[in-house]
Amino acid sequence: MLEKLSHIGIAVKSIEEALTLYRDILGCSLEKIREMPERSLKVAFLDLDGTHIELLEGTGPESAISKFVEKRGGGIHHLCFNVSNIDEALESLSEEGIRLIDRQARTGAEGNPVAFLHPKSTGRVLIELEQD
Amino acid sequence: MLEKLSHIGIAVKSIEEALTLYRDILGCSLEKIREMPERSLKVAFLDLDGTHIELLEGTGPESAISKFVEKRGGGIHHLCFNVSNIDEALESLSEEGIRLIDRQARTGAEGNPVAFLHPKSTGRVLIELEQD
Repeated sequence: MLEKLSHIGIAVKSIEEALTLYRDILGCSLEKIREMPERSLKVAFLDLDGTHIELLEGTGPESAISKFVEKRGGGIHHLCFNVSNIDEALESLSEEGIRLIDRQARTGAEGNPVAFLHPKSTGRVLIELEQD
Repeated sequence: MLEKLSHIGIAVKSIEEALTLYRDILGCSLEKIREMPERSLKVAFLDLDGTHIELLEGTGPESAISKFVEKRGGGIHHLCFNVSNIDEALESLSEEGIRLIDRQARTGAEGNPVAFLHPKSTGRVLIELEQD
């Protein structure tokens, strides 16, 4: 069902501070930073030899990322995998008894259809599917 | 400094149960399962289009993985990245003020030199370095 890893989502307190580590020290390439005020989110897209890392900073207290950072101090937030047909994937997962956060795909940060699976069905790993 | 993603480490209650999700439903390829009684650990190595996922099951209460699973119910445990020279990487990170769990590299599950950085210095992301 999964085609490949799309990206690793990491929740951070501050993208600016996190870039000191991920870009300046560890050597990942910064591709772009996108502000998404409608989602109270700021995202930095990094690349490391084809692996994509998204640094996620909440820009409002209502953001799920802000809550995650407040509770845990930050950390790995989710794994996103590409699928060729997200509607078929969601239907198939549902038939397998996997709980879904998004029963229907919605539009993600990059304009592609995305959906999250419920961590209760995935051993507490937050998994996002993205149709590419 | 980092060359590429080596693998994503996921802590699970039971590898057998987790394989139902990752192999049977999501379609990752199971490469091998290794028992490491000396580390109270059982590891399943999965591949998804070149991305490696390690499912980690603690086989004793003293295992760090067992404690992680007890506390959180499982989840993404660490990210491992390849470096060309781990001694140089650790020295350089230390000079940058990054706290290290392993000040010297030790031998990892696959026989390569590995070392963990301290999550307090990495925004709560447990990062492993592996010399390949």
